[in-house]
Amino acid sequence: MQEIDVLVSEVGPRDGLQSISRIMRTADKLRWISALAAAGVREIEVCSFVPASLLPQMADAAEVVRGAAEIASLRVLALAPNLKGVQAAIAAGANAVTLPVSASRSHSQSNLRKSPEEAMDEVGRICAWRGSLAGGQRFVVEANVATAFGCTMEGPVSEDLVIRMALRLARLGADAVGLSDTTGYANPAQVRRLFSRLRQELGNKVGGAHLHNTRGLGIANALAALEAGVTTLDASQGGIGGCPHAPGATGNIVTEDLVFMLEAMGLRTGINIKKLIDARQIILEALPGEPLYGHLPDAGLTKGFRPASDWGETHE
Amino acid sequence: MQEIDVLVSEVGPRDGLQSISRIMRTADKLRWISALAAAGVREIEVCSFVPASLLPQMADAAEVVRGAAEIASLRVLALAPNLKGVQAAIAAGANAVTLPVSASRSHSQSNLRKSPEEAMDEVGRICAWRGSLAGGQRFVVEANVATAFGCTMEGPVSEDLVIRMALRLARLGADAVGLSDTTGYANPAQVRRLFSRLRQELGNKVGGAHLHNTRGLGIANALAALEAGVTTLDASQGGIGGCPHAPGATGNIVTEDLVFMLEAMGLRTGINIKKLIDARQIILEALPGEPLYGHLPDAGLTKGFRPASDWGETHE
Repeated sequence: MQEIDVLVSEVGPRDGLQSISRIMRTADKLRWISALAAAGVREIEVCSFVPASLLPQMADAAEVVRGAAEIASLRVLALAPNLKGVQAAIAAGANAVTLPVSASRSHSQSNLRKSPEEAMDEVGRICAWRGSLAGGQRFVVEANVATAFGCTMEGPVSEDLVIRMALRLARLGADAVGLSDTTGYANPAQVRRLFSRLRQELGNKVGGAHLHNTRGLGIANALAALEAGVTTLDASQGGIGGCPHAPGATGNIVTEDLVFMLEAMGLRTGINIKKLIDARQIILEALPGEPLYGHLPDAGLTKGFRPASDWGETHE
Repeated sequence: MQEIDVLVSEVGPRDGLQSISRIMRTADKLRWISALAAAGVREIEVCSFVPASLLPQMADAAEVVRGAAEIASLRVLALAPNLKGVQAAIAAGANAVTLPVSASRSHSQSNLRKSPEEAMDEVGRICAWRGSLAGGQRFVVEANVATAFGCTMEGPVSEDLVIRMALRLARLGADAVGLSDTTGYANPAQVRRLFSRLRQELGNKVGGAHLHNTRGLGIANALAALEAGVTTLDASQGGIGGCPHAPGATGNIVTEDLVFMLEAMGLRTGINIKKLIDARQIILEALPGEPLYGHLPDAGLTKGFRPASDWGETHE
């Protein structure tokens, strides 16, 4: 596999699908995931291990992980809110788990039914359980500070608090700690400032940036994260997604537009944009009429576009 | 008037209205312009002085300039493709003229029916005419290199050529030379690189960045321009606009989202976002059903939002 400069981590099958009420069939999810992997996407958050009573869209989480785990080129991530979910994800074959911990107390209660402290304790339990496993069963733990840039219920969130939580999560054993703009509150100056501090404090344990486009600043925030040294950016194909527990928070940044920006800037993602755009068709077939976002798919590549990655094709 | 850090130059009444086929009534244009000025917008490109046979939407250019010129707080810009247009703009009371010169030969021919050299010669004639006026009649000349980041007809545009043209325009007498991503081809690395070079070469004669959101990178490109020291950013309320002669080039960056980004970053624009959003209503009344864009107007300000500018109101 060719080297890459930025890891675009696709979260559509998790963040996207959990935010719409319709349910995508398991076979369609796997077809979509395969098409994304074939386009060069190397990491996909494929599902969330939460009770089906809460999120029926994710009832097939184990089956989706099992199917995705068969794709050799793919790093399969699953979101899990607790140890039980993590154990199910690992049993199904996930390579890594994403553990959300909210900086906002109100969001933490409504999203996880736990205080931030309880959510962090759970991360400690998960890392302790991982420590008890044989070497071959180890997996990667990615913690994520949610509502790190502000909260629809609480308003501004203390940057010191976010950094303290990130440090604690790293000490508890998380391999990486990322920051999420769950609510679409972030601005580029804030993103640059917080990720720069995180990098100073955590070094190579700095995780990814999970950004939403609620107020139109998603891609600018991604640029700011890059400038602060972030090398993993979450995005959702077609921009579907959001957080059902954060009212008004609509839509991750669009994978197609993000990959276009990165490749145009000379940053290799390993992703073939043409094949990526083709994969939209699978969503449209599986969920007819579902609104998809993104400017690049409508406008098309620029004339004479030269990607940074090798797309394995000759350019005219 | 309070100091500002970034001048947001509204181009909706020109770039926006010329790109849609419906015609806004003169009285509505002036009502819209007044509302924008009342929201704190300090500069508006109010029209284009081109033959009404080509752009009937701009047939009332002189009347619009005369009306706008009555607003004391407003710097009234008019676009003009030639000396005749400039003379009409100045006679009507414009404070400044924008003179577009295309870096792409094909775009120059289709947009101005002139070669780039002929368009630059025209700028020379305009500056010479200005030099012949009495001091009190002087006006500001802003030249703009269009298709500076790529062209739908020609593809990539030479950065050296863009810089050479900008230098020539400054030598011919332009007070400022800006760069336009007429076609929505720019990426943030390119914007930063080109404006940094322009700044090195032109010093304080660097003009504004005119960016389109065709491929979703408009606001990220604005951030990159800021980082390169640009302090004037064009934007269009509701994102209406585009270039009728550049197929596929749709929509300027959205003023509402841009102002939100700047104010959230701590950069003063002097613009009250609430009043800015209220001004959308005038467009919707004047052009019922016209699609307007922008994320902020839908999502609303963040809870506890503190603008950098003084909005003359108490925050809860």
